[in-house]
Amino acid sequence: MSDEKLDKKKTIDLRKRHIGPSCKIFFSHDPIKIIRARGQYMYDETGQRYLDCINNVAHVGHCHPDVVKAGAQQMELLNTNTRFLHDNLVVYAQKLQATLPDKLSVCYFVNSGSEANDLALRLARQYSGHKDIITLENAYHGHVTSLIDISPYKFQQLADAELSPFVHVAPSPDVYRGRYRADHPDPATAYADEVKKIIDKVHKKDGKIAAFIAESLQSCGGQVIPPAGYFQQVAEHVRKAGGVFIADEVQVGFGRVGTNFWAFQLQGDDFVPDIVTMGKPIGNGHPMSCVVTTREVAEAFMSSGMEYFNTFGGNPVSCAVGLAVLDVIVKEDLQGNALRVGRHLSALLEKQKEKHPLIGDIRGCGLFVGVELVRDRLKLTPATAEAQEVIYKLKEQHILLSADGPHRNVLKFKPPLCFTTEDADLVVEKIDLILTELEEALKLHDALNADSSKRKLPADENGHQCHGGLIRSRGSSQQTKRLKT
Amino acid sequence: MSDEKLDKKKTIDLRKRHIGPSCKIFFSHDPIKIIRARGQYMYDETGQRYLDCINNVAHVGHCHPDVVKAGAQQMELLNTNTRFLHDNLVVYAQKLQATLPDKLSVCYFVNSGSEANDLALRLARQYSGHKDIITLENAYHGHVTSLIDISPYKFQQLADAELSPFVHVAPSPDVYRGRYRADHPDPATAYADEVKKIIDKVHKKDGKIAAFIAESLQSCGGQVIPPAGYFQQVAEHVRKAGGVFIADEVQVGFGRVGTNFWAFQLQGDDFVPDIVTMGKPIGNGHPMSCVVTTREVAEAFMSSGMEYFNTFGGNPVSCAVGLAVLDVIVKEDLQGNALRVGRHLSALLEKQKEKHPLIGDIRGCGLFVGVELVRDRLKLTPATAEAQEVIYKLKEQHILLSADGPHRNVLKFKPPLCFTTEDADLVVEKIDLILTELEEALKLHDALNADSSKRKLPADENGHQCHGGLIRSRGSSQQTKRLKT
Repeated sequence: MSDEKLDKKKTIDLRKRHIGPSCKIFFSHDPIKIIRARGQYMYDETGQRYLDCINNVAHVGHCHPDVVKAGAQQMELLNTNTRFLHDNLVVYAQKLQATLPDKLSVCYFVNSGSEANDLALRLARQYSGHKDIITLENAYHGHVTSLIDISPYKFQQLADAELSPFVHVAPSPDVYRGRYRADHPDPATAYADEVKKIIDKVHKKDGKIAAFIAESLQSCGGQVIPPAGYFQQVAEHVRKAGGVFIADEVQVGFGRVGTNFWAFQLQGDDFVPDIVTMGKPIGNGHPMSCVVTTREVAEAFMSSGMEYFNTFGGNPVSCAVGLAVLDVIVKEDLQGNALRVGRHLSALLEKQKEKHPLIGDIRGCGLFVGVELVRDRLKLTPATAEAQEVIYKLKEQHILLSADGPHRNVLKFKPPLCFTTEDADLVVEKIDLILTELEEALKLHDALNADSSKRKLPADENGHQCHGGLIRSRGSSQQTKRLKT
Repeated sequence: MSDEKLDKKKTIDLRKRHIGPSCKIFFSHDPIKIIRARGQYMYDETGQRYLDCINNVAHVGHCHPDVVKAGAQQMELLNTNTRFLHDNLVVYAQKLQATLPDKLSVCYFVNSGSEANDLALRLARQYSGHKDIITLENAYHGHVTSLIDISPYKFQQLADAELSPFVHVAPSPDVYRGRYRADHPDPATAYADEVKKIIDKVHKKDGKIAAFIAESLQSCGGQVIPPAGYFQQVAEHVRKAGGVFIADEVQVGFGRVGTNFWAFQLQGDDFVPDIVTMGKPIGNGHPMSCVVTTREVAEAFMSSGMEYFNTFGGNPVSCAVGLAVLDVIVKEDLQGNALRVGRHLSALLEKQKEKHPLIGDIRGCGLFVGVELVRDRLKLTPATAEAQEVIYKLKEQHILLSADGPHRNVLKFKPPLCFTTEDADLVVEKIDLILTELEEALKLHDALNADSSKRKLPADENGHQCHGGLIRSRGSSQQTKRLKT
């Protein structure tokens, strides 16, 4: 740990000098220096407290003492690789497995969601003997080369993006803004049929489907909740083509959705993915993650003859931390809390929707909630600049929220699961005030026939440029680009 | 942490049930259960102590109290992502940078050597605008899809390996067993010319070189020490082609080589890579790693328009741990110890070479030492089974050593840097006894005209099948295979 206490300006200067400029900071024109955190609160260098509505990684609360203790005690004893037997590894695998359908019984421990999703692709390709992957519009699955290829959310940022010939993008099952909406008689089937069409097209070109991959609920893509039954039908189409279904739970797993431990379970008990990937919340911030699959997929992977070794993955410290997280979720009934507080939050927001024309849609499960802001409820014109203004004004009120989705107009709630109804009351109260002000200003602007998107907002909280509607990074100007690498 | 104390058999059973069967264990027919470790020693569930000659990850010694304390204290305070300012991140980046040539000034913090090498490829491809990568024979750079492609050590294990059209394999600069040997007047130039030839071939096919990547000293590839001057010449050829030089220090960095902090510095002060990747020892077991590059490469990466965000990378806990590791290396002069004990170990082994015909070559720098066993010093017939026998017999003596290289006949020393001259004395004394016995037995076998490779050794310590010479995993039968994915 650094004993030096740097002046904030010095911290910023050193960061500019020594940290990759592609690594963006929140609120880049006035970033926050956080020095400690606890529960759902973060504190800056002056002692100012911030209510944290965004750090889904600090799943059971920042610096939870049980998790810290478990990690610290194991660090003192042993931290080595899985080429030696250790109880933490197997006990953790057993307890994690117990949260999943029986069929998903074999674990691979790795260090990040990206490592997990990359391994999932390797498993799928080895098992199926196929290569083509179907992914969703606006999907984000990680930052390594193989995952940028299947992440439109990322590769669309590239100036010269080029879709890999083995990657196929299906429409996002978004019943608010997508191709088939809430008024469609059967959006689940309609969206699943789109996947079927892609499979047919791939087959015509002599391609073969290795996998369909989707977040169980799309997060960066705009907090999208797929209609129930969609995954079952997609899985049927994909399996018929010899591929597997990969459910990416990196953002949304571990009880966040409240009713279930895993978000894919929202689709119904009759749906079981072939591969589940985990990440962010699994270690409450400790770098770890996991891929769980079926015995059949695991055996096929082994039959390739290639050993799988991950230096840090599944080490006794990571497993101790992971076990502690699972214990805390149960002990403190955090899944139940996510359900209760999530319902409270959604109900409060629904009331705001009645009041504020800027709110186009409220959607979510448990403590995974999206509030989509629009300038026009019929045209669904994204209220991108307004969403950024909400985020910035909330920051002034010491509340941390973010906006995401392809238009960066979806306010994104994914707080630590110890979030309370009082926290929800506070943030919604502040949003109410900000939206009221904004709507006043908008009317004024309309009256003046001015373009409301021109108000000064140089970049969003992640440093992306805002151009009223669709947000794109520098160098990019259209939704589908050619991917270089 | 698991409070349950499982019977060893139960641990093995649960592992079989819930851990991917591709995840191999040391000494699979009788694996070791390690429950604690300290310094250069590991302890099993009965309290039996093992001398650890292989865990380069536990760089400053297992469970070093300073590192444990730094990690535990920071875990209590804050563990969050780099979208907030934090002193640990920038102070660590600054201190890490200070160990490197000035030109290498921009850091990206990630979670594993694999994430680091994948990012290095992305940086190289973005900077150069090119796609082709030159890698070395027997190279290992990581387990994600993009790195399996450039790791002959891995993809040769696949039953149906297929070399990616963008990957080109140059001869390993191995002056013992390679194309140009110690008796060659200028092996550095000869090996560098091979890289030049590849570049010319790629250009003829309208390919363009993005990068040459090599471990500064090949580790899994057989503890290969490239001749000084080789990297300079390769870098010149590669840069002329518009590509960059990536030095992979994941296994060999952080003072292990004794004379220098980084192994690439063994080539001379006139050599500076464009990208350096780090890993294993960086956090003494904590999952973390880093990529350091030049301002030019970093700016080019940013100009793509794509943000780089790594959820866990560079978090305050990882940085606290990394800072503590750097501090301990200095405080305990571990680089100096690596030099002194490494020289002692190499000198002892050289004496063994005079005595034992099975020892073909001793090579190394500091506490990175390889002992290549051969059945015939002229033909260099790999003594694979004998190397495995040494490993197994040392295990009976409670000493952990491994064998690696394409023929798995290179005894591989890479202990924690707190290894002592007494430890070196002990392991060499035991090796002496084992080799004496083995050579007796071999003479007996020769007298009986029996094939010495047929002695019962079902698999090596990593679970690979032994077939006398070249070791291949199940399903593989030739050195260059077609890679499926």
